[in-house]
Amino acid sequence: MMNKPGMLVVYSGPSGVGKGTILGPFLNDHPNAVLSVSVTTRQPRPGEIDGVHYSFITKDEFQHLIDTDGLLEYAQYSGNYYGTPKAAVDKMRAQGKDVFLEIEVQGAMKIKKSCPEAVLVFILPPTYESLKERLLCRGTETKEIMEARLNTAKFELAQAKEYDYIIINDDVGRARKQLCAVVEAAKCETRYMLEYIEKLVNLTEK
Amino acid sequence: MMNKPGMLVVYSGPSGVGKGTILGPFLNDHPNAVLSVSVTTRQPRPGEIDGVHYSFITKDEFQHLIDTDGLLEYAQYSGNYYGTPKAAVDKMRAQGKDVFLEIEVQGAMKIKKSCPEAVLVFILPPTYESLKERLLCRGTETKEIMEARLNTAKFELAQAKEYDYIIINDDVGRARKQLCAVVEAAKCETRYMLEYIEKLVNLTEK
Repeated sequence: MMNKPGMLVVYSGPSGVGKGTILGPFLNDHPNAVLSVSVTTRQPRPGEIDGVHYSFITKDEFQHLIDTDGLLEYAQYSGNYYGTPKAAVDKMRAQGKDVFLEIEVQGAMKIKKSCPEAVLVFILPPTYESLKERLLCRGTETKEIMEARLNTAKFELAQAKEYDYIIINDDVGRARKQLCAVVEAAKCETRYMLEYIEKLVNLTEK
Repeated sequence: MMNKPGMLVVYSGPSGVGKGTILGPFLNDHPNAVLSVSVTTRQPRPGEIDGVHYSFITKDEFQHLIDTDGLLEYAQYSGNYYGTPKAAVDKMRAQGKDVFLEIEVQGAMKIKKSCPEAVLVFILPPTYESLKERLLCRGTETKEIMEARLNTAKFELAQAKEYDYIIINDDVGRARKQLCAVVEAAKCETRYMLEYIEKLVNLTEK
């Protein structure tokens, strides 16, 4: 049991739902859980640290990762590429760390196919109104950007049913507790125990 | 969310694995979780209290429950009938209580079919040797009874893969924590959230 690799946890939810507010303190409290750092070809924004917020790489480097099957998933947004580096994730999991991927729904669906052992967690808003408020009341954006955001949220909500667990962020303390429970319980899911069961049953045959 | 019925938790594991040692303190700590009291046609043993350990009923009463679809599952062991009374379970769940059924594997498989919303939890021994020791070292039984017990355990272990969650009882404190996590996390399983997701998505369509 001790040498089991860590879990791969895909963590998604519409923009503005409060993913970071739930996950940040969770990671602080669980040294065994780490957040995967995505690679991106976009320019760092002020305050962003290379290797912390993202690993900033060139388009050539990104293309090389694609060509060598070095990404668990990748996607293009507004002309920039974003991806999850396979080697870093595998290394952390081999050390027994539970690795969180905070990624969009499309990337999550790719992970679901390529890594069937992944646990997929989706954060939902308590009500549609609360999400709309949080999306639209940042106040600085144009009407077009706001509508695009709502459309993205609509698309993402519809994909929530493809995830394994749903956490409703109606109370951030409760949501954090539920995330703890989900990560703990997911390790008890029968799909991870089949080998163990098989071994026990084989022993009884002797 | 407040008016959701409680969960139906099927709780099984081979004899001697320590099911009661994990569940007893869990129930004490969680007033919202209750253990269903089975009905049986067998005679009470010294110290057994009617309505606490079992509800002791006649064969006619048991047959009436069968005839009126009043049992979630039932089985016969050594000439006596044992069953889970549907009305009592439904009533407690309607009050929001999480109802635990500590039942054998055959009964569990019936519940899995008739109540697809049930969460099935199986307790496994850390090793086959530890189970064998606990099964055989009670010391008072004949060789035949011991062999029958091992055969039952073998059959039950092989069914573990039909359950949703597996808890290994290698450390009773850890096992209790895992049971807490499983009951909490199971409520976040997507299968219980489909209605909620549907509602949110429909609202975005407006």
